Amino acid sequence: MQEKNSFKIIQEGITYPQGIKAAGVCCGIRFNRKDLALIYSEKLAVAAAMYTTNKFKAAPLLVTENNLIKSQGKLQAVVINSGIANACTGERGLKDAWEMANYVSEGLEIKDEYVAVASTGKIGEFLPLKKIENGLKKAIPMLSISGGTEAAEAILTTDTKKKEVAISFKVDEKEVKIGGIAKGSGMIQPNMATMLAFITSDISINQELLKYSLEQAVEKTFNMISVDGDTSTNDMVILMANGLAGNPRIEEKDENYYKFYEALSYVAEYLAKCIAKDGEGASKMIEVKVQNAVSFGEAKKVAKAVINSPLVKTAIFGKDPNWGRILAAVGYSGAEIEPDKVDLYLKEKIVENGQPLAFSRQELHRYLESSDEIKIIIDLKMGKDSVTAWGCDLTYDYVKINTKYN
Amino acid sequence: MQEKNSFKIIQEGITYPQGIKAAGVCCGIRFNRKDLALIYSEKLAVAAAMYTTNKFKAAPLLVTENNLIKSQGKLQAVVINSGIANACTGERGLKDAWEMANYVSEGLEIKDEYVAVASTGKIGEFLPLKKIENGLKKAIPMLSISGGTEAAEAILTTDTKKKEVAISFKVDEKEVKIGGIAKGSGMIQPNMATMLAFITSDISINQELLKYSLEQAVEKTFNMISVDGDTSTNDMVILMANGLAGNPRIEEKDENYYKFYEALSYVAEYLAKCIAKDGEGASKMIEVKVQNAVSFGEAKKVAKAVINSPLVKTAIFGKDPNWGRILAAVGYSGAEIEPDKVDLYLKEKIVENGQPLAFSRQELHRYLESSDEIKIIIDLKMGKDSVTAWGCDLTYDYVKINTKYN
Repeated sequence: MQEKNSFKIIQEGITYPQGIKAAGVCCGIRFNRKDLALIYSEKLAVAAAMYTTNKFKAAPLLVTENNLIKSQGKLQAVVINSGIANACTGERGLKDAWEMANYVSEGLEIKDEYVAVASTGKIGEFLPLKKIENGLKKAIPMLSISGGTEAAEAILTTDTKKKEVAISFKVDEKEVKIGGIAKGSGMIQPNMATMLAFITSDISINQELLKYSLEQAVEKTFNMISVDGDTSTNDMVILMANGLAGNPRIEEKDENYYKFYEALSYVAEYLAKCIAKDGEGASKMIEVKVQNAVSFGEAKKVAKAVINSPLVKTAIFGKDPNWGRILAAVGYSGAEIEPDKVDLYLKEKIVENGQPLAFSRQELHRYLESSDEIKIIIDLKMGKDSVTAWGCDLTYDYVKINTKYN
Repeated sequence: MQEKNSFKIIQEGITYPQGIKAAGVCCGIRFNRKDLALIYSEKLAVAAAMYTTNKFKAAPLLVTENNLIKSQGKLQAVVINSGIANACTGERGLKDAWEMANYVSEGLEIKDEYVAVASTGKIGEFLPLKKIENGLKKAIPMLSISGGTEAAEAILTTDTKKKEVAISFKVDEKEVKIGGIAKGSGMIQPNMATMLAFITSDISINQELLKYSLEQAVEKTFNMISVDGDTSTNDMVILMANGLAGNPRIEEKDENYYKFYEALSYVAEYLAKCIAKDGEGASKMIEVKVQNAVSFGEAKKVAKAVINSPLVKTAIFGKDPNWGRILAAVGYSGAEIEPDKVDLYLKEKIVENGQPLAFSRQELHRYLESSDEIKIIIDLKMGKDSVTAWGCDLTYDYVKINTKYN
């Protein structure tokens, strides 16, 4: 347990907030691995979700979106399977996702529309509904506070590590908790990466502000990571808050709201960085901070261009302080920049006003060799907006994982 | 020599049109390799150029742009060095590029503004002017019709093959010729890829139409290739036409103009495909045709998303008919599409209306294994516009070339 700013940081996980239970079981979609997770709030929670922008939006996302509209922003359970994405599956896929939600609402005796559904795995295959039904019959009686880690495991695909975190902080003397789990860029058989994250809290807050806080936090955290620039059909983040902390309900953007927002952002950033670190084949995490841009949007263009550049990613894997590749990515990002103003820091300032300074290539090589987290700062010196993006290097293992998956 | 449509296709090269001479020499920037090329038209030619959109535009591009404005679209010589890109070199780099042009105009006794300059290689280093001056003293007396291939060699970096082509066709009974050379995605030391192409013709045409034809052809050829999505600081295409074919000057978009445009497009597409095939580490060329889009722009978004997707590129390298990754890229391209309408062909139709058809995975695996050029067709079934893009697979060698270049 650590202390950071004004909150306590706990390693585990989604069940840390009051009234949240979870379970993770093997239902048989994948061979001998947990593949079905269930998250449940004893009390009906206000909730919000964000979905992939991919136009091939998978069936479970459509069901979740629909339910959140019908319930006017409330959820009590989330069911997630790994192994099959239920994407590009047409009418039958949609029917299957509805069915999966129904098993949960019937088993837990809650309204249909209080259930969210998520899937990750192979595209174009149908869900084995019988296995999921039987799995849920196992999972529901197992729901408990200690099931968080098992849920965190059950949503993984080829991730090498489970990703979970929890924190607590005070709102008007009441202890408030947030917990989260996520999965990142794994890939099963002929398939693609999917990012999923589920965050729970016992804070009392109105749904509109909850939704706003999620949108703001996602934009600066999950939307700022990239493993390979590919956007999945199944990406989704869900946030639920059941109010059991007993704080006076947050109704406006006051001090308490910002306390919650700061804590939520911490959880989202922590999980996002876990995903970047555990990107397919990654040997190093790369952090790109763009500062003094004319707007958040322009800063984001620059950060995304650098974090997605295969030439920058291979240079970092090769431990070479290749500032030319970084500047070139800044230049083609499409953002409003002035080449003659750009400064670049890699451990130290190595480019000033668009031109290289004298620096020791050997010393920077040693820094790149010895650090697991490489920090690049790009100062555009034009405005006041900043943004940070996270990614990873491009390695032989990335090619291997995505070539030899059969 | 082949016949295609209405024109003859010759293997070499830039000096095939009347009155065009070239030379390629070692000037000592690179170790024991040709690194300086000169292209010369005996008669002043109308000319047009297109430049990188990277905001860190290299000094030689600025000089060329300036000269073409001053000369009102006329050129008589192009000088190109490989080994150093003269990019991110500030005032001194600009002065050096001017100096390089001056050596040529003095040596050839032509006006300053009739010289174009191009560089490719390492970013952030200064040109060794004395070596270039001496190199030009060697190259100028060597200018000849047989020097085209040497020029084609001198502009390469880590390209594995020289890229040249020439064709001839008839305009009003006169034989008209077009020749071209290009370099693609090579990389030297801590550096990045640069695409350069130089095309000559002896056609008689007014400058405005020449410029228009280049813009149109580049948009559908060079701008449709991608090795890794990184856009260089030094990309440039130059087209010169000296009128020596003696055809009645082309002054409007008549039948003769379109004959020329078709021939120019052939040359540009040929060189562009050479670059895609010889992309860093590439084992296969990938061609993506998007058809029946609502506009050229929307078709291009889809084609570029698919050709740039690391997951599609690694799947092709792995010889896997992974249609899910292709559809996902179509979905995140940002283009106007309807997921339920999309058909996908890989040798045969494998996806219809956004859902997979029954197909033999083994048979497609064999196709991917045995073919050097993989063709993907995406039918959006929404409008009438089509586009084709070319790229290559993502292999261990791409990572190796861009990691171990020191």
